[in-house]
Amino acid sequence: MTPQVILLKENFTVAQALERIRRQANASEMIYYLYVTDDARRLSGIVSLRQLVTAQTEQKISEIISHDPIYVYTDTDQEEVARVIQKYDFLAVPVVDREQRLVGIVTVDDVIDIIQEETTEDIYALGGGVQSSGDNYFQTDLFTVARKRVVWLLVLLITNTVTGTIIKSQEDILQKVVTLAAFIPLLTGTGGNVGAQSSTVVIRGMNTDEIRSLGTVQVVVREAMAGAILGITLGTIATLWAFLLQGNLQVAIAVGTSLVAISILASISGSALPFLFRFMKLDPALMSAPFITTAVDVAGVLIYFGLARFILKL
Amino acid sequence: MTPQVILLKENFTVAQALERIRRQANASEMIYYLYVTDDARRLSGIVSLRQLVTAQTEQKISEIISHDPIYVYTDTDQEEVARVIQKYDFLAVPVVDREQRLVGIVTVDDVIDIIQEETTEDIYALGGGVQSSGDNYFQTDLFTVARKRVVWLLVLLITNTVTGTIIKSQEDILQKVVTLAAFIPLLTGTGGNVGAQSSTVVIRGMNTDEIRSLGTVQVVVREAMAGAILGITLGTIATLWAFLLQGNLQVAIAVGTSLVAISILASISGSALPFLFRFMKLDPALMSAPFITTAVDVAGVLIYFGLARFILKL
Repeated sequence: MTPQVILLKENFTVAQALERIRRQANASEMIYYLYVTDDARRLSGIVSLRQLVTAQTEQKISEIISHDPIYVYTDTDQEEVARVIQKYDFLAVPVVDREQRLVGIVTVDDVIDIIQEETTEDIYALGGGVQSSGDNYFQTDLFTVARKRVVWLLVLLITNTVTGTIIKSQEDILQKVVTLAAFIPLLTGTGGNVGAQSSTVVIRGMNTDEIRSLGTVQVVVREAMAGAILGITLGTIATLWAFLLQGNLQVAIAVGTSLVAISILASISGSALPFLFRFMKLDPALMSAPFITTAVDVAGVLIYFGLARFILKL
Repeated sequence: MTPQVILLKENFTVAQALERIRRQANASEMIYYLYVTDDARRLSGIVSLRQLVTAQTEQKISEIISHDPIYVYTDTDQEEVARVIQKYDFLAVPVVDREQRLVGIVTVDDVIDIIQEETTEDIYALGGGVQSSGDNYFQTDLFTVARKRVVWLLVLLITNTVTGTIIKSQEDILQKVVTLAAFIPLLTGTGGNVGAQSSTVVIRGMNTDEIRSLGTVQVVVREAMAGAILGITLGTIATLWAFLLQGNLQVAIAVGTSLVAISILASISGSALPFLFRFMKLDPALMSAPFITTAVDVAGVLIYFGLARFILKL
């Protein structure tokens, strides 16, 4: 935020205003918007330099001023400030305190830096729970780097531990049909990818507000249908491939049908969990991946072994 | 790009310039930068409205003009245009053709939209190879949605197929020690996550230019060391957990040591592959994940079974 702004009074003439700008320009970062305040320093209007230079010099500021200016508060979230500037194509937005007194402005170049920073945070969170500190990552020491990454890896290690425990509990069937083990990475991997796609578009849609036109239920239903289309496509291919690899049609069908179920499950959890985390005031970008992975891996392996037992009559 | 700009001549006085602005303001989106061209319409200088209002009315434009203005070409990549505006905190940048003739300007509000769009592209690519068309994803029909996602899923299905084939080829050892299968998701999953973290910071660093201070080799070495720290931490925990789960110390050691090797491998491929793809003029954000997954899964499973054979003397 920049506290230096050029203040005008409503009873100034345009000529007086231009004279004040001339004198104060060197001390002000932004001279293209001029702010009008009342005696209590409360923001009462905004006039742009564009309006001033196109007005007649003897006109009063009160005649050309925009009343009801758009402003933000000192405690408005920086993402929201960026959104206001972006929405209205402003070069700056005034910041007022709770008593409506003007305390400064946020300019569009600050907003670009904010967008850049928030984007890095989102990308880091989505791409592996790396915490962004706002520092240049490539100038941070290695132990700090490792510390920032290890928490998320440990959470996913626990997830994988659960999956491992489930596979371990299915050792009886694995002992009989050891080839079933060969398809576990394919099923959990594809499920994870389908879930990541759904959560990516939903989380990005939340951040750019593109999602507002649809309700939560509509988004989840839509993603579930996309998951079904993808599941049927991939399941068919996986069935063929599994049959070619090991020649057992029943195992191949178990792989293919599991993949359909897992894709639907993955797209539902991938689209629903971000809404849940947002509702719980947690960061969807950071929280979604571990929980989607857990849901997909655990339920996916159970579905797979369940179907295999059923189809192979074990 | 906006073609409407206000043009001035070097021999104008400030008063003449202000008069021209007054007359042309309604037809121009941006009146805060004024452009000076020569007789061949070539850009020769820029003057800001700030400079005009603080100058004396009888001064000549040639006295206050900035010669050697910064500009972009009509075929400059939009990301590069955004970078120029961001770097210099401009409100607009002039666009010239190859003969240096002024054809228009790109304003800062366009740049915010460009940054938003490019970010969506990067996030979609990183988060599962979803192609961004610039349309609102939530208004696109379901089959288009599925088509945009299926290519990447098929690439990863092939990856997983390779991993499956390798597991299948190890059936002899799996038959003897079926419990080895329980740790495959943990190893490939953790490797994938370590690799995703490295590629995320490297790709983001490329896009924000933060990485420029370091060379490729330095970045990869740095990430390999981070991978080693993470691998040792996670490997120790995984060894303990694997021992608790199934009581076989040799299997537990095979799991733990594999995890160290896989973490180092994952951080090397996660940091090196984006540089390789950039060098090959391919999009690192889109290409990295499938190849990192392949490298980590295939090499990881081979390392794991190799170590298990060695430690268990099979």
